[in-house]
Amino acid sequence: MIRILVLHGPNLNMLGVREEALYGQHTLHDINGLLETWAKKEGVQLEAKQSNSEGDLVTWIQEARGLFDAIVINPAAYTHTSIALRDAVLSAEVPTIEVHLSNIHRREEFRHHSYLAGVALGQISGFGATSYLLGVQAAVDHVQSTQSASS
Amino acid sequence: MIRILVLHGPNLNMLGVREEALYGQHTLHDINGLLETWAKKEGVQLEAKQSNSEGDLVTWIQEARGLFDAIVINPAAYTHTSIALRDAVLSAEVPTIEVHLSNIHRREEFRHHSYLAGVALGQISGFGATSYLLGVQAAVDHVQSTQSASS
Amino acid sequence: MIRILVLHGPNLNMLGVREEALYGQHTLHDINGLLETWAKKEGVQLEAKQSNSEGDLVTWIQEARGLFDAIVINPAAYTHTSIALRDAVLSAEVPTIEVHLSNIHRREEFRHHSYLAGVALGQISGFGATSYLLGVQAAVDHVQSTQSASS
Amino acid sequence: MIRILVLHGPNLNMLGVREEALYGQHTLHDINGLLETWAKKEGVQLEAKQSNSEGDLVTWIQEARGLFDAIVINPAAYTHTSIALRDAVLSAEVPTIEVHLSNIHRREEFRHHSYLAGVALGQISGFGATSYLLGVQAAVDHVQSTQSASS
Amino acid sequence: MIRILVLHGPNLNMLGVREEALYGQHTLHDINGLLETWAKKEGVQLEAKQSNSEGDLVTWIQEARGLFDAIVINPAAYTHTSIALRDAVLSAEVPTIEVHLSNIHRREEFRHHSYLAGVALGQISGFGATSYLLGVQAAVDHVQSTQSASS
Amino acid sequence: MIRILVLHGPNLNMLGVREEALYGQHTLHDINGLLETWAKKEGVQLEAKQSNSEGDLVTWIQEARGLFDAIVINPAAYTHTSIALRDAVLSAEVPTIEVHLSNIHRREEFRHHSYLAGVALGQISGFGATSYLLGVQAAVDHVQSTQSASS
Amino acid sequence: MIRILVLHGPNLNMLGVREEALYGQHTLHDINGLLETWAKKEGVQLEAKQSNSEGDLVTWIQEARGLFDAIVINPAAYTHTSIALRDAVLSAEVPTIEVHLSNIHRREEFRHHSYLAGVALGQISGFGATSYLLGVQAAVDHVQSTQSASS
Amino acid sequence: MIRILVLHGPNLNMLGVREEALYGQHTLHDINGLLETWAKKEGVQLEAKQSNSEGDLVTWIQEARGLFDAIVINPAAYTHTSIALRDAVLSAEVPTIEVHLSNIHRREEFRHHSYLAGVALGQISGFGATSYLLGVQAAVDHVQSTQSASS
Amino acid sequence: MIRILVLHGPNLNMLGVREEALYGQHTLHDINGLLETWAKKEGVQLEAKQSNSEGDLVTWIQEARGLFDAIVINPAAYTHTSIALRDAVLSAEVPTIEVHLSNIHRREEFRHHSYLAGVALGQISGFGATSYLLGVQAAVDHVQSTQSASS
Amino acid sequence: MIRILVLHGPNLNMLGVREEALYGQHTLHDINGLLETWAKKEGVQLEAKQSNSEGDLVTWIQEARGLFDAIVINPAAYTHTSIALRDAVLSAEVPTIEVHLSNIHRREEFRHHSYLAGVALGQISGFGATSYLLGVQAAVDHVQSTQSASS
Amino acid sequence: MIRILVLHGPNLNMLGVREEALYGQHTLHDINGLLETWAKKEGVQLEAKQSNSEGDLVTWIQEARGLFDAIVINPAAYTHTSIALRDAVLSAEVPTIEVHLSNIHRREEFRHHSYLAGVALGQISGFGATSYLLGVQAAVDHVQSTQSASS
Amino acid sequence: MIRILVLHGPNLNMLGVREEALYGQHTLHDINGLLETWAKKEGVQLEAKQSNSEGDLVTWIQEARGLFDAIVINPAAYTHTSIALRDAVLSAEVPTIEVHLSNIHRREEFRHHSYLAGVALGQISGFGATSYLLGVQAAVDHVQSTQSASS
Repeated sequence: MIRILVLHGPNLNMLGVREEALYGQHTLHDINGLLETWAKKEGVQLEAKQSNSEGDLVTWIQEARGLFDAIVINPAAYTHTSIALRDAVLSAEVPTIEVHLSNIHRREEFRHHSYLAGVALGQISGFGATSYLLGVQAAVDHVQSTQSASS
Repeated sequence: MIRILVLHGPNLNMLGVREEALYGQHTLHDINGLLETWAKKEGVQLEAKQSNSEGDLVTWIQEARGLFDAIVINPAAYTHTSIALRDAVLSAEVPTIEVHLSNIHRREEFRHHSYLAGVALGQISGFGATSYLLGVQAAVDHVQSTQSASS
Repeated sequence: MIRILVLHGPNLNMLGVREEALYGQHTLHDINGLLETWAKKEGVQLEAKQSNSEGDLVTWIQEARGLFDAIVINPAAYTHTSIALRDAVLSAEVPTIEVHLSNIHRREEFRHHSYLAGVALGQISGFGATSYLLGVQAAVDHVQSTQSASS
Repeated sequence: MIRILVLHGPNLNMLGVREEALYGQHTLHDINGLLETWAKKEGVQLEAKQSNSEGDLVTWIQEARGLFDAIVINPAAYTHTSIALRDAVLSAEVPTIEVHLSNIHRREEFRHHSYLAGVALGQISGFGATSYLLGVQAAVDHVQSTQSASS
Repeated sequence: MIRILVLHGPNLNMLGVREEALYGQHTLHDINGLLETWAKKEGVQLEAKQSNSEGDLVTWIQEARGLFDAIVINPAAYTHTSIALRDAVLSAEVPTIEVHLSNIHRREEFRHHSYLAGVALGQISGFGATSYLLGVQAAVDHVQSTQSASS
Repeated sequence: MIRILVLHGPNLNMLGVREEALYGQHTLHDINGLLETWAKKEGVQLEAKQSNSEGDLVTWIQEARGLFDAIVINPAAYTHTSIALRDAVLSAEVPTIEVHLSNIHRREEFRHHSYLAGVALGQISGFGATSYLLGVQAAVDHVQSTQSASS
Repeated sequence: MIRILVLHGPNLNMLGVREEALYGQHTLHDINGLLETWAKKEGVQLEAKQSNSEGDLVTWIQEARGLFDAIVINPAAYTHTSIALRDAVLSAEVPTIEVHLSNIHRREEFRHHSYLAGVALGQISGFGATSYLLGVQAAVDHVQSTQSASS
Repeated sequence: MIRILVLHGPNLNMLGVREEALYGQHTLHDINGLLETWAKKEGVQLEAKQSNSEGDLVTWIQEARGLFDAIVINPAAYTHTSIALRDAVLSAEVPTIEVHLSNIHRREEFRHHSYLAGVALGQISGFGATSYLLGVQAAVDHVQSTQSASS
Repeated sequence: MIRILVLHGPNLNMLGVREEALYGQHTLHDINGLLETWAKKEGVQLEAKQSNSEGDLVTWIQEARGLFDAIVINPAAYTHTSIALRDAVLSAEVPTIEVHLSNIHRREEFRHHSYLAGVALGQISGFGATSYLLGVQAAVDHVQSTQSASS
Repeated sequence: MIRILVLHGPNLNMLGVREEALYGQHTLHDINGLLETWAKKEGVQLEAKQSNSEGDLVTWIQEARGLFDAIVINPAAYTHTSIALRDAVLSAEVPTIEVHLSNIHRREEFRHHSYLAGVALGQISGFGATSYLLGVQAAVDHVQSTQSASS
Repeated sequence: MIRILVLHGPNLNMLGVREEALYGQHTLHDINGLLETWAKKEGVQLEAKQSNSEGDLVTWIQEARGLFDAIVINPAAYTHTSIALRDAVLSAEVPTIEVHLSNIHRREEFRHHSYLAGVALGQISGFGATSYLLGVQAAVDHVQSTQSASS
Repeated sequence: MIRILVLHGPNLNMLGVREEALYGQHTLHDINGLLETWAKKEGVQLEAKQSNSEGDLVTWIQEARGLFDAIVINPAAYTHTSIALRDAVLSAEVPTIEVHLSNIHRREEFRHHSYLAGVALGQISGFGATSYLLGVQAAVDHVQSTQSASS
């Protein structure tokens, strides 16, 4: 059974509450609900966590080593400022997929660069809650093709 | 019936022939086959074309106006140099999704910037042929939610 | 009764202890005392907190939503590095005023840029403890004029 | 009796006439009125002048030497282009406070940098006419604390 | 009757005297003569002024409010250094057209950027005295189409 | 009889169809009609062509050598990315005038730079369809003054 | 028998016609003649083609795979703007040598950078028609030493 | 007895587990063991701590004031992004030495700059676990020479 | 008799009054006295003027045409911001020497660049009042060698 | 008889000894041998020298004036840092060709720029020892065509 | 017996003579004395040399090949400008450690970058004469661990 | 008796031989003759030396300590690339004046920056051989005023 860790970065606990025009009406609870429904249907084990703290996210990525087959992370503001998250992904050696609700290339210049992208498997941005669904799907696809390749 | 145009940019006709380590063993013919199989299963109308010419791609995007509900495009090298493609997407007013086989953020600096991303619905990169499959799926999802919103 | 949250960023707990030439002899305790005296005199409800953790500050800003009419924050070092604080202000939708003890434009180049300023109501820097007093006054002024405008 | 010179830079004579959304409905005459009322109440001597000419502003700052205890200046467009104003402040050796009606950090990139800030006592921006009131208050506060320190 | 103000920036009073290879043999008097002849023929009211002072030009633009329907300005050296002129155009709210005798893109790098262009209706450069004639024509055209649109 | 070639770059065939707020309601057909009417009235021979292909535009400029007295070109997106167009103008040695419908200095940063401007006679931008009319007029003016100078 | 493809980029069909001071009096026909004479003497098979279209050049490079042992290309203006040519060279996997008639380092800043150079075998610039002769010679030398190494 | 605080930044708890080629086979436990052995031999009091949280590291540096004679810190990813750590060192006024396992100048561009270095006593990088040993030795050397100077 | 115009830019009227450490104890009156003494001894006609206004300086340079053989100017703050002064020197065609009291290369980064230097005969900086004396001497030397060359 | 000076810059005396993958197995002695063989066959007088000292290379270039018809130089590391070599070439006025063993555009960013290229006749890079052979050939070709042109 | 070469770059022969505040009172002779004492105690063979000439330093590094097990070098000013030293280290293939007396990150911006660091084993800066002692110790440590690894 | 050392940098031994338009017809011998004549007249002891080697110039500056009262140096190409010369001036602590024959601000961008200027007493450029005469005069003036100040 494939195990996926979904991590939500800072301020994503405010989804649905703030800035609807940019992020839509879904709360974080709604998105986690969608992901769990999908996971159940696909027979995937899925855990989702949110934190406003860079250190927590680093620690959770480290702890995923051996416990999860893939990480799907929306690093939010830390996308652009955190080298620690990048190093955590390198040290955990768990395939990691970066997702964003909004299209970061349509926003302020400083949101165009991602420190994580260079060590992630891939990046998906701009599809709202669907970005997460595509992310977990890509994760499953990657784990399966890796497993079949090594079997 | 949802209609999707898939456009492949320059040198993608060489897929499977060249640089396997970077782009995988799938030929463009294989990828188009995967997309057609998916389209048939999902009941989606799908057309795929490739060109090495910037002008051809611009014209095809313009002509999609009224004929297609969404475009999924891998602009390849033109991602980073073509403002004409960007303007074509603006003028056609067909929702457009940008996909890349490789993770462009892991490659040369000049491949990190996309002129298209600022006008695309979203961007998916790094999952090989799967990037296309996620792209058409995001396209269908977007068209359906727009249609249900306006109905 | 107007409610104001005063937030002190990293290392401000060391005020009065360190670098007197730059920051003056007031301890953080002294500044909070000045603010409380002012608040009592003006009939304003005021709460002050300090943290060295970016995540704590983000959470406190989020929690201010609905509980406070304005935030006066000295983000200290996080002024220049934290997009998460910026996003927190955007999501909390509480008018926020940025204050600095020292004139940040007289210091190192990397202290001239503020990620917060672009979403703050305004910025006050260079007047020592007086910066805070001007900040809470500007906050009261803003809340009153907004209330009278909407009444 | 504390003496304060208030200087208004180019185009501020058009306040209230132009761009209300950005600068509010107060005319320059209104702002000077507010300042005079405040001055009378506080027992402060205050003089206010406006010019569109960089040279005039330079000369007025020079002439303040010995005649005023502090300058509160809104250099407007010259904030970003005038080194002559900066040198005037250095040569006059009168404590100078920089104020702005709008939050300059929310506007075009070229308005983010101030040549004056590096030699000013401090900077206040974003509070409309209130910026001036906070500025003169900061000026009085500074003069008083300097006088008590040297007495 | 359409009223147009023509403003000439610094050093344009030296035209015909200096640097013929770059600016041609026409003196400023000649150019003003050409413009007056054209104005008489077209039934347009036209006034032309020159100054070496940034402050004068700012004031003249402000005073054009309500008195002129359009401004045609060759800001010369101030094109590249004056934000005050830009703000004056914003505050006067008179449609403004920027003209240059020489092609500024063929000259030194620092002449390629214009602070005015971002708030001007349009820019014409490189046609010598003809640049002015095209400018006043564009001004008339703009005023007429605006009037017919609002009538 | 003066002969002028008018060239329209990529996506200009979509005029009137797309983005009315930015480009107005005129179709390319309308603009060519205006130009032909003007040409007939002025006794000028005028030919107009559009292409989405950089190579076509290069070839048409080359072929203008000896056949046309001037070129008026709106290079659209290729303005900012094509050195080949610049070299074509250099090699054809036909006086070339660059025109733009919108004011390129009011748009994205990457639209502020023109590779063509450095070799063009002059540049006109921001007046909608009128930009073309001013352009052909400037072309006629230039050809006549050159002819009279050499006769 | 060694097979070499010589490709000429945009505007090189104008050689000898334009800008003699920079490019000399040789027409493209002359240069191709020199190359054919050399090829005949050396017993090398040589084919030369020119295009103004980026897409054509990309396609010709792709088609060289298996048919030619080396490519000698003067990408002209596309040297500095085309990532598609770079990718074509990568996908074709035919050793490619970049040549320039003029010394590109003596010209405008934007001609100093080559997207092709990073994937070419080597670069020769500044010797007029001789650049091509040195290029084909280097190509032969490379093919021979590779063949002898692998035999 | 000299007292030294050794601080390990984010992800260093993964040493020996991850990326052996870059960081060697020593775990953090091994390194702390080496340091304790050395400390015992030298008669130095040494305490070592690790955290993934920027705020924790800031607080520990502050608390070192008065309790330790020197700090040896490997700030890892925070080296390049944390101004808060820099300010903590300034406020604690405990001599601080920056160490790195790998040679940061051989890695990605963004790892070449250190916010800490400007306030540290010195920097040692590239010697694996030996970097720490040299660091504590330099700390002892510095404390001793300062003490002998002031005695 | 050689005629030299000496121009002093903004804030130089404050010399001797302000910032003695940087500019010395000489007042502007002293410097003009030194220059007049020198002029009398050398048999040179010399006139000195100061202004805080950019426009005045531009006008005085223009008026020097035909009346003076050389200009010695200390543009002070306008050195770094005024293109109008540069153009004035170009239009007046009077040989101009740029002098500075302090060594501008030892001061803030923004004082290292001079718009005037590119059109001046030469530049002298760093010798206090002596800079002016060397400047007028260089002017005389230049005028004499030019006169002897053309006689 | 044509006389050519071949100069080898710093560290080229280590060729064949170091970094074979990058520079091949030829020692400098081998390369000089190849050049001498070629020179004898072509009837050219050739002298080759190497130095690690920038000053020596400058002096040798100066001394070539009048004694040699052309210089072929591989400036190695000094390519990117020496303006003195550039000035030496300018002052010697001997046609100079720059050669490199490796393709400098495939190496570190700081090796892409050459101070010499702007004053060299041309540049050849990437062909190993063959670069030198192409260089001396280009030199002979240039000298002969210059001589025939002037005879 | 381990053999270490210590190289001192330009101006280090002036140590103790100049700028005591920055470099301390030790002369170069003192430092060499310290190193010799240490070497004798540790049973290490050590040779120290100083030169103001870049070429000499290059040559000495080359000659170390085979004669020394490690180099400890303080390249002083050449740290920031010499690519030739970098190439010498690459060609000599002797492990090299870079040391600095002062903390180069506390000095001018142009002293923050080191061309050598990218090819050195590691870098030590900021500890005065102790930097050298830590450097030779690191050298010994490295040689021993390499020898034990290969034995 | 005041003692002045005059140092000429690389390629200045070619003066009069090369590039007359830029540097005039004076040979270095002529310039030294002018300086000696002046020295004899003024009763100043003067020595002049030239070298193409950076190391020689560094050494000569060091040796000036105690032997000369001032240095007048034209560092030529090393102006822009040598930090070693800057450090030599700092270590020698002999007042140093930088002179240039041509106006370096009228030449290539890379000649506008001087590493020496930041530590020189002052800089004189653009007056040909006269630059040296003004330089030695400024040196004498400086030494005399320093001596009179300290006596």
